[in-house]
Amino acid sequence: MNKMYSYEQLYAFTKGIFICMGCSEKDADTATISLLSADLRGIESHGVARLSGYIRLWEVGRVNATPDIRVIHETPSTAVVDGDAGLGLVVAPYAMQMAIEKAKMVGTGWVAVKHSNHFGIAGQHAMMALPHDMIGMAMTNASALVAPTFSVEKLLGTNPIAVAIPAGSEPPFVADFATTTAANGKLEILQRKNEAVPNGWVQTQDGKPTNDAHALKNGGALLPLGGDREHGSHKGYALGAIVDIFSGVLSGANFGPWVPPFPAYVPMPDQLPGEGIGHFFGAMRIDAFRSTDEFKSNMDKWIRRFREAKPVEGESKIIIPGDPEREMELDRRANGIPLGNAVLEDLQAIGKKYDLQLG
Amino acid sequence: MNKMYSYEQLYAFTKGIFICMGCSEKDADTATISLLSADLRGIESHGVARLSGYIRLWEVGRVNATPDIRVIHETPSTAVVDGDAGLGLVVAPYAMQMAIEKAKMVGTGWVAVKHSNHFGIAGQHAMMALPHDMIGMAMTNASALVAPTFSVEKLLGTNPIAVAIPAGSEPPFVADFATTTAANGKLEILQRKNEAVPNGWVQTQDGKPTNDAHALKNGGALLPLGGDREHGSHKGYALGAIVDIFSGVLSGANFGPWVPPFPAYVPMPDQLPGEGIGHFFGAMRIDAFRSTDEFKSNMDKWIRRFREAKPVEGESKIIIPGDPEREMELDRRANGIPLGNAVLEDLQAIGKKYDLQLG
Repeated sequence: MNKMYSYEQLYAFTKGIFICMGCSEKDADTATISLLSADLRGIESHGVARLSGYIRLWEVGRVNATPDIRVIHETPSTAVVDGDAGLGLVVAPYAMQMAIEKAKMVGTGWVAVKHSNHFGIAGQHAMMALPHDMIGMAMTNASALVAPTFSVEKLLGTNPIAVAIPAGSEPPFVADFATTTAANGKLEILQRKNEAVPNGWVQTQDGKPTNDAHALKNGGALLPLGGDREHGSHKGYALGAIVDIFSGVLSGANFGPWVPPFPAYVPMPDQLPGEGIGHFFGAMRIDAFRSTDEFKSNMDKWIRRFREAKPVEGESKIIIPGDPEREMELDRRANGIPLGNAVLEDLQAIGKKYDLQLG
Repeated sequence: MNKMYSYEQLYAFTKGIFICMGCSEKDADTATISLLSADLRGIESHGVARLSGYIRLWEVGRVNATPDIRVIHETPSTAVVDGDAGLGLVVAPYAMQMAIEKAKMVGTGWVAVKHSNHFGIAGQHAMMALPHDMIGMAMTNASALVAPTFSVEKLLGTNPIAVAIPAGSEPPFVADFATTTAANGKLEILQRKNEAVPNGWVQTQDGKPTNDAHALKNGGALLPLGGDREHGSHKGYALGAIVDIFSGVLSGANFGPWVPPFPAYVPMPDQLPGEGIGHFFGAMRIDAFRSTDEFKSNMDKWIRRFREAKPVEGESKIIIPGDPEREMELDRRANGIPLGNAVLEDLQAIGKKYDLQLG
């Protein structure tokens, strides 16, 4: 049912849309690269499938296509960036680049961002540090879909954390994960199939455990990594909270239940304590700690030892974080990116509206 | 069955033991405060119950009571500290203080430590940042008890992460958790009671899921937060790996399966790639990002909103990370610290050997 498109086809179409929104040539390029990195790496829920969502946010005035992105506070190793309601896809690379520049000067750089929007996949921004022989970190808060341990109410987003660490002859270590048991995208797959979800993924509107894939849609909540208290959900809750505080409270963005929703038709929360959504980025120069060569040689040793460990029955190997996404990207750059019917229809409708041809 | 001791009684006894080891007055004080913070905060597995373990490490020459702790590499925002095989209980506060000093100068400070030993509870070190209106972070690797997702072999420690964040009139947010589904201490409690453990805590020697509390002792492994792939264990594995790499690879300490074991009778791994165990500390000045008053006022708002959320049936409230430990500490400072029979006998045997009276 999937139709294949080359990266170049999707790039041309997506960039064209951002140009139609009023983005500069450079911003349209940056936004497209950020967005399509999700499709390349197999995280389809965050790629072109969301393009129409970004457009709707722009149509209702919640995304500013020509933002004045600027630093509003800084020290040698830190900055706060005001995204001026720009696309997170553009604001995030700006802020990550600033973290990298600070790391060049004083060893590490840490940048909190307010007044931004959804930034695509965290891993893409964290990976910007790798060519500089730096460790990169990226995180963001998001609108509340997650109930903390013991809570009926949804107070946290899926709040992902990404950490990218360079290696030597091995490929880099790239972890990028939501702080929930399962990402929303995985839940949606089971919803479409009408299948039961495992324990610990969601709870009902009343805060009861459930295996109903439709529970979130029906007023329930996603659960923090761990699922319930007995399985460590207080740890997943703490992680999601740390991401929320670093991204939202440290920057002056919104936080907790006040983070603006992605769907443009969902009303904004009342009495916002901050501006837009928040991100947090970090870059640490390897040679601010030890010789880059020694570090990389030890990272290679780390990666090989883990990859060569004895697997459990039925599994062929231990996975190094980032391996599946890198393999997916190689494949999709060579063989194209599959689009399902729903996404394809969505893109065709956009193309019609903005007079752009897909492929 | 428990006997109560005042903090002062345990302090005098424990400090006396460290003095007997040959620690300086100042180091003995620091080590005692680090160690007993675990008993005060209700994490008994990391407190005086481990004192005899530290002594045995010193007896076999793996702990140096008079270390030359020193900075071997630095930039304005980073440092690497060589702990010279000192007690982690002493090395960690030294390194955390250095992170704080760097944050005073350039906004943030990040210190990786090699050649150290077990540092007690991570939260205690992270909390050193709070009186300076800074966010504190502390993590450490530890000997391998944890099997990554799909692995039969144990390659990671329980690798805890602590993050302490100041608030205004509310108490601080203090998260401190192992990156496993359950800490080893909780497993030991069920072992003693001979009770089954929940799914996702441990696996057998062959890498099979089990509810046997004795599985770890019998060659099995603890499991990363999440438990299995379906419940997100690849995320807990990634977190534990990040802690291992920041603490071990960035510093030049050992990492993965090469981290030295805590029990002195367990032989050291062969062909060590580094020195001792590793830690990683961070301090971020709040006012390197925004006005401290604004931040604290928003943290109060964050904390109150979460604390006042509607709880699920059967629970009275949503817990803010750090609440239970702080309440425990208030109680134990006022009413004493309970010691079980096994710990008491252990301490009495130490007291006899070193001619020190407990209480």
